[in-house]
Amino acid sequence: MFREASHLNGFSGNALARLGEAGRPRSVADALASEGASVHLFAEDRALVRVVGEKLSARFTQAEAQSLGLDPDSLIVLGADGQALRLAGLATAPEKQTGIEAVDLRSLAIQGALDPADLAALAQARSTLHWHAQNRYCGRCGDALALNGGGVSRGCAACGTEIFPRIDPVVIMLAIDGDRCLLGRQARFAPGMYSALAGFMEPGETIEEAVRREVKEESGIEIGRVAYYSSQAWPFPSSLMIGCHAEALSTEITYDAAELEDCRWFDREEARLMLAHRHSVGLKTPFKMAIAHHLIASFAD
Amino acid sequence: MFREASHLNGFSGNALARLGEAGRPRSVADALASEGASVHLFAEDRALVRVVGEKLSARFTQAEAQSLGLDPDSLIVLGADGQALRLAGLATAPEKQTGIEAVDLRSLAIQGALDPADLAALAQARSTLHWHAQNRYCGRCGDALALNGGGVSRGCAACGTEIFPRIDPVVIMLAIDGDRCLLGRQARFAPGMYSALAGFMEPGETIEEAVRREVKEESGIEIGRVAYYSSQAWPFPSSLMIGCHAEALSTEITYDAAELEDCRWFDREEARLMLAHRHSVGLKTPFKMAIAHHLIASFAD
Repeated sequence: MFREASHLNGFSGNALARLGEAGRPRSVADALASEGASVHLFAEDRALVRVVGEKLSARFTQAEAQSLGLDPDSLIVLGADGQALRLAGLATAPEKQTGIEAVDLRSLAIQGALDPADLAALAQARSTLHWHAQNRYCGRCGDALALNGGGVSRGCAACGTEIFPRIDPVVIMLAIDGDRCLLGRQARFAPGMYSALAGFMEPGETIEEAVRREVKEESGIEIGRVAYYSSQAWPFPSSLMIGCHAEALSTEITYDAAELEDCRWFDREEARLMLAHRHSVGLKTPFKMAIAHHLIASFAD
Repeated sequence: MFREASHLNGFSGNALARLGEAGRPRSVADALASEGASVHLFAEDRALVRVVGEKLSARFTQAEAQSLGLDPDSLIVLGADGQALRLAGLATAPEKQTGIEAVDLRSLAIQGALDPADLAALAQARSTLHWHAQNRYCGRCGDALALNGGGVSRGCAACGTEIFPRIDPVVIMLAIDGDRCLLGRQARFAPGMYSALAGFMEPGETIEEAVRREVKEESGIEIGRVAYYSSQAWPFPSSLMIGCHAEALSTEITYDAAELEDCRWFDREEARLMLAHRHSVGLKTPFKMAIAHHLIASFAD
């Protein structure tokens, strides 16, 4: 396989064949009845995982799912792994003694003890389950929505509206001024962490326009050229991170204190130390699972 | 200004400062009361425009908007053009004799008689107005939603949910096998038109993974490397087109007849003739306003 920057990001490598492909069972009941079906389970936002030797497993049989308090009305079909169908649903948080734990997806991505393809399927599952839970009623007429096609969409019998799982495109960009890059720090970040700037795209703009708007809004820096680098599915709850490098046309920072508690230029050497967690006063970048890490690393190296 | 591929696409060049910037009036009433405020109007999906010499104008004063049947409850604030605020709202289709016509955004983009920045603002307006109309009730609890911040979001007083305008990322890609590119034809296309394949992204995949999945689903062709080319806001109703070139690893097409009525390879020379509308049997590509045109042109030239 060739090298692809997006492969380096956590939650990539989803190997499930989607429901869009012809010939897949499209109802939850059909999927449950199929041979080898397995279920990913969530207790609210956290995935249930079991320790298997040195690895983790996030796949449960239907019987196991029932014993873990599966809510059958929450089930959706994710896709097929070969002939075996994969579903996802909501369960209750397990007791300590079961050997099964509820773990958030950030921690699972950082630990790396789960098969990457299953981690990606969990990202798909978490985004999709969240969307279904947030869309039980029709936005147009207020009537109840029903599940279509095992989770492909939701439909309103009253007004005919059909809606599909939502993905929010976000631009995340490293502004570069020669040998320096621009990093910001939000108050909610872990101590010492600085990251690339980011923000939700808005209707009526290109990716490049969104990059220029967001950097200007958050830091006051003017941006010229924008170069796409890689992308990442970000299931918190359902973003598509679109990572870019961006050429700074100005250098004086006036950061938006409502968004950031600090924002400044870092030279290549300082960025390298932060990536390696060897910075003298403990400053650091996000973990390798995050697209921001690789945006910074591809500049620093 | 440097050359940027996304600049070539219709609806680019939005010059409005968004509401996200500090210091902008955030309510519709404040915006209407501000000096120089203007309104973009829509009769359902079509923008109201007036002929001014050889050009078109899509800006109306508040008084004009009222005379055109503006629904005041539909108004949202788009942003600021210098000091002057821009709003958008729904009106009634004008009578023939008023000199004002309701025109769909595709036609406006093809004609090129409207200022590109105003065309981009119309794209923003159409996507955002459509979203507000489709989200009058809370998806989580079914209660009525209220407009927040002049249209920045909608909020539910009953359960506290806040939702923001939705943008659907779509991958649109030109698969390339050496000197040939892959184009498909949907039954709803104009006669003779072939375009790049495209499809909505799904939760839990990168842009590159979505490109490989969509090309495989629609044409049976396996894709290797994917290279981002440009992006386009596509207000039908609210997509973000993410345009890529994609390296074909196989050549035998098995197209999905539910999606396409034809799909085949075209060599560079045939693509050039189609772009120039000089093809011997009248085959053609989409117009220059569409990202597909430029994906094909950048391959053919």
